[in-house]
Amino acid sequence: MARINDNYLRLKSGYLFSEIARRIKEFQAAHPDAKLIRLGIGDATRPLPGAIVQALHAAVDEMGRAETFRGYGPETGYEFLTELIAKHDYGARGVTIAPDEIFVSDGSKSDAANFQELFSADAIVALTDPVYPVYLDSNVMAGRAGAPDSRGAYDRIVYLPCTAENGFDPPLPDGPVDMVYLCFPNNPTGAVLGRAALKRWVDWARSAGAVLLYDAAYEAYIQDPDVPHSIFEVEGARQVAVEFRSYSKTAGFTGTRCAYTVVPRDVTARASTGEAVPLHGLWFRRQSTKFNGAPYLIQRGASAIYTPEGQKQARTTIEYYMHNARVIRDGLETAGLTVYGGRNAPYIWLKTPAGLDSWGFFDKLLNEAHVVGTPGAGFGRYGEGYFRLTGFGDRAATEEAVARIKSRLKR
Amino acid sequence: MARINDNYLRLKSGYLFSEIARRIKEFQAAHPDAKLIRLGIGDATRPLPGAIVQALHAAVDEMGRAETFRGYGPETGYEFLTELIAKHDYGARGVTIAPDEIFVSDGSKSDAANFQELFSADAIVALTDPVYPVYLDSNVMAGRAGAPDSRGAYDRIVYLPCTAENGFDPPLPDGPVDMVYLCFPNNPTGAVLGRAALKRWVDWARSAGAVLLYDAAYEAYIQDPDVPHSIFEVEGARQVAVEFRSYSKTAGFTGTRCAYTVVPRDVTARASTGEAVPLHGLWFRRQSTKFNGAPYLIQRGASAIYTPEGQKQARTTIEYYMHNARVIRDGLETAGLTVYGGRNAPYIWLKTPAGLDSWGFFDKLLNEAHVVGTPGAGFGRYGEGYFRLTGFGDRAATEEAVARIKSRLKR
Repeated sequence: MARINDNYLRLKSGYLFSEIARRIKEFQAAHPDAKLIRLGIGDATRPLPGAIVQALHAAVDEMGRAETFRGYGPETGYEFLTELIAKHDYGARGVTIAPDEIFVSDGSKSDAANFQELFSADAIVALTDPVYPVYLDSNVMAGRAGAPDSRGAYDRIVYLPCTAENGFDPPLPDGPVDMVYLCFPNNPTGAVLGRAALKRWVDWARSAGAVLLYDAAYEAYIQDPDVPHSIFEVEGARQVAVEFRSYSKTAGFTGTRCAYTVVPRDVTARASTGEAVPLHGLWFRRQSTKFNGAPYLIQRGASAIYTPEGQKQARTTIEYYMHNARVIRDGLETAGLTVYGGRNAPYIWLKTPAGLDSWGFFDKLLNEAHVVGTPGAGFGRYGEGYFRLTGFGDRAATEEAVARIKSRLKR
Repeated sequence: MARINDNYLRLKSGYLFSEIARRIKEFQAAHPDAKLIRLGIGDATRPLPGAIVQALHAAVDEMGRAETFRGYGPETGYEFLTELIAKHDYGARGVTIAPDEIFVSDGSKSDAANFQELFSADAIVALTDPVYPVYLDSNVMAGRAGAPDSRGAYDRIVYLPCTAENGFDPPLPDGPVDMVYLCFPNNPTGAVLGRAALKRWVDWARSAGAVLLYDAAYEAYIQDPDVPHSIFEVEGARQVAVEFRSYSKTAGFTGTRCAYTVVPRDVTARASTGEAVPLHGLWFRRQSTKFNGAPYLIQRGASAIYTPEGQKQARTTIEYYMHNARVIRDGLETAGLTVYGGRNAPYIWLKTPAGLDSWGFFDKLLNEAHVVGTPGAGFGRYGEGYFRLTGFGDRAATEEAVARIKSRLKR
């Protein structure tokens, strides 16, 4: 009799977004004429840059002719793309990454979710809290999280609280930990870590024999020239870190799907025999066995982001979103709210006013301003008391939402 | 200290294709003027159908305009595609599959490799032998295969030999088995199973409480009107089977990447509590947690295969490959070889002549005819003594290769 993976039954259901949808539906039924504005969105809304559109068309034409048709490509990505990544995303910042240390994929969600497969089932995982849920859920499925308590905390996960009190800078684990997921610029808090803070993590990982799973999906939003864009800008990281990068928020690829993961040849973990095994070879084996590469034409599209026009067009879109983030940030501050993030990230993380938890503020914002955001509690226990808004909306709608918050939100 | 998943160390290295490459290189160094023809290829070579090219261009344009831009789509596929699949691939054959029982993905390789995650780590897996290596390797990585012996057979896998002696029709397992991978039309043998044989498998699965993982990636190559294209054409299959389908060989998508998996709401496996849990909900959770959907534009391209022009164009390509398969089949028979497959599948599976094992025949074919194929031993122990050729090559090259085999291969 076939048996399921019981770990799946330990997942919490996708409560956050279904509960948001339920409350919106209820509100709209009661107020059919209210014009809702969604500022909770974590998805690109601007069109693909023209240079990418042009490259996609050219690649589609190639696929339609026998002489230029492409079948199976390299599972880990075409060299025409990995060479551009190595040069522009790393070389230009003084970091040496070889093209074959870059694994192109269909998205950072897949990579961040799948990478844990390379580790033993009893590895100890640390997560910042609040956190992007995929890091947790993929480890719950693999049996590394243990059992959830009544508040949804798993007994084998090491949580690293990120709150206003510590400047959203996660503390180092104070016990044994094998794998740590770090995401900077951070979703949802919008925080970044400077060079010294990243160095502290690399040094800790080297001494603890731990691996850093570094999610840099929002690096293109960094404005401060002193903030590293890659963990590999920190000395010693090649031995202890892998890095997830994505075109989703950099080039509007949330619906077009292309990303990459950097696994330096130097990063290792131990076999049960004690032998140090390079994660590079394991990830290569994982990807070549369970994945067949991102579509040729999508990789051609992604390549166009590295042309001068592509760079300029992508930069314009990022500035558009970051301008929205400033509009929100400034508006909320004027409205008397305490606001974090939004300077080096498209995410604004605000403190809910005294007396309101994050769902209470959700209802207040919905009822008084007809604006939808995301309750911080949806990202973890330490997200309680916070609320996420984003710069990914339409400019006019963002301005209208902020005007409503300023004029309608009751103090 | 981070520890790896030791199961990865139990994988056999990708010996087959690297050994083929090594022998080709050695041959070419010794015979620089020889014009090699590769008939071992399992990859599409004809261009994408015009209807698909047109749909891809239209979708690229949509992505370049703000009004029609698409961000994150449903992780399990757009309804515009799942409704077409339900109607054309199932409804037209008298099978009722709901659109939300269809999970669109980036490829059957991913789906076939990932689906095992839903089952317990101690589930017993049965595989036909010879077999597509992904079914085995993904289970080795998950720890279900046990340890390999000196001949590469894993001690926890139940092997179901498929040879000329049993007409490549796998025997039912004679002991406890929880999951069985079946692929028909079969890669590499080219065999198909008729309705009665499939019914026997469904009945067995129902009585054993097992799940059938049915790979129908080559269904479009079936010529015989009595051979089912889907396991769901067999009564009772909805409770015990899932089915993998792909556009790779149907519409030339090996480099364009789109496939789907059908998980009926009725198929269940047991939790440790004894409760029957629908695999549909588990796969939904797996895909929505670890995958972000196939690209919008690729799904638009795939949809075009269901237009009258798309159907006709895809059919023309399949006929092209099947004509090649007939050319190979007839030519090899004329050359005195014993040949299987190639009638309802693009794969020709031949018996190596007496005295030659599959690598011996590889060398003979390479040296005498300058033709490259795939040794059967690469697909498993029971592939020894066989050899795979395919219809996926260029027509003229295929004819030339067959002419050489007929004229140059020493008897």
